[in-house]
Amino acid sequence: MIASLRFILATLVASFAFSGLALAEKIVVQVSDGNPATWNQALNVVGNLREVYGADTQIELVAFGQGIHMLKFDAPVSSRIVEAQKNHGAKIYACEISMGRNKLVRNDMAPDVVFVRAGVEHIIARQREGWVNIRP
Amino acid sequence: MIASLRFILATLVASFAFSGLALAEKIVVQVSDGNPATWNQALNVVGNLREVYGADTQIELVAFGQGIHMLKFDAPVSSRIVEAQKNHGAKIYACEISMGRNKLVRNDMAPDVVFVRAGVEHIIARQREGWVNIRP
Amino acid sequence: MIASLRFILATLVASFAFSGLALAEKIVVQVSDGNPATWNQALNVVGNLREVYGADTQIELVAFGQGIHMLKFDAPVSSRIVEAQKNHGAKIYACEISMGRNKLVRNDMAPDVVFVRAGVEHIIARQREGWVNIRP
Repeated sequence: MIASLRFILATLVASFAFSGLALAEKIVVQVSDGNPATWNQALNVVGNLREVYGADTQIELVAFGQGIHMLKFDAPVSSRIVEAQKNHGAKIYACEISMGRNKLVRNDMAPDVVFVRAGVEHIIARQREGWVNIRP
Repeated sequence: MIASLRFILATLVASFAFSGLALAEKIVVQVSDGNPATWNQALNVVGNLREVYGADTQIELVAFGQGIHMLKFDAPVSSRIVEAQKNHGAKIYACEISMGRNKLVRNDMAPDVVFVRAGVEHIIARQREGWVNIRP
Repeated sequence: MIASLRFILATLVASFAFSGLALAEKIVVQVSDGNPATWNQALNVVGNLREVYGADTQIELVAFGQGIHMLKFDAPVSSRIVEAQKNHGAKIYACEISMGRNKLVRNDMAPDVVFVRAGVEHIIARQREGWVNIRP
């Protein structure tokens, strides 16, 4: 019963994050793959989402695991990371656990990236808040 | 508060789409990978889902990104696409944005495929309606 | 209307499984990829989830499709499967349909693995119970 109340509470919390069906989507795009073709595809998806859903939609991209290399300042997609941030209004997150495993420090990464402890933790939190998780 | 009401409304809308726990599942299978092994695996999953959940369950397969090549009329899995439609009752969707990026036109694609503007848009809409998204 | 009631009932059932926002997460990790790099990444994620969410969180790993090879007793990650079970408290599931397709029997598999008819069926059931599905 207490668990039920907690769930209902969680749903209400989510409702404040997810501001309506047709009004503004909230989408978190996951990249955990080391293949640059997947990186480009994820960045295509970010652009498509902005075009399809319009300016109000919140779009985030979270890189972890082998996907973390996508966010290195000298990655083959580095100019597209800036484009996703500036032109498509996406917030980009880097997983610090994955950075550590790959001996990457903050200075190795693309500008304006947001650092989070664990990429999966951020993705799970967003799902609990009512965001949709897409892994292109 | 208005956001809460919207969320509850969305839940009620979803409830009409998702007609019960044991009665009829609704599953949207995502393919966004260019590897034919993944295409075959996704088609295996479609068959398994039909067998496990029975005739009432709604099954869709959405191809986008590098996965779009799976739906070409001459793809190595083309006979299995027909089987998924005819024998397993799956509805198959092709992403027109991905077709454009790969210079594919409707005549290049397998018969009876449904064309949607953006594959991710369809997947997100289904999730908001209460469908489960599986990416094999 | 009956469908709505069913959905609300499903939500209440889920609430008993998902015992609160901050208290205990429930996460099902999917592996359906034949690449050992993905297997190691999924096992990293299991360890990270345990560290981030603490002892109360329920963590499961489900292998199906080409991912089933991860759970062979002689797989390159076999010692890490034991570590995931013993040290990280993860429950590991093998898909019997995938085992059959790959001519694997129960004796070919790692110890203490739980066998389920279809891996996707287990993942879908967990999602309906309120678990988060992560595919690293």
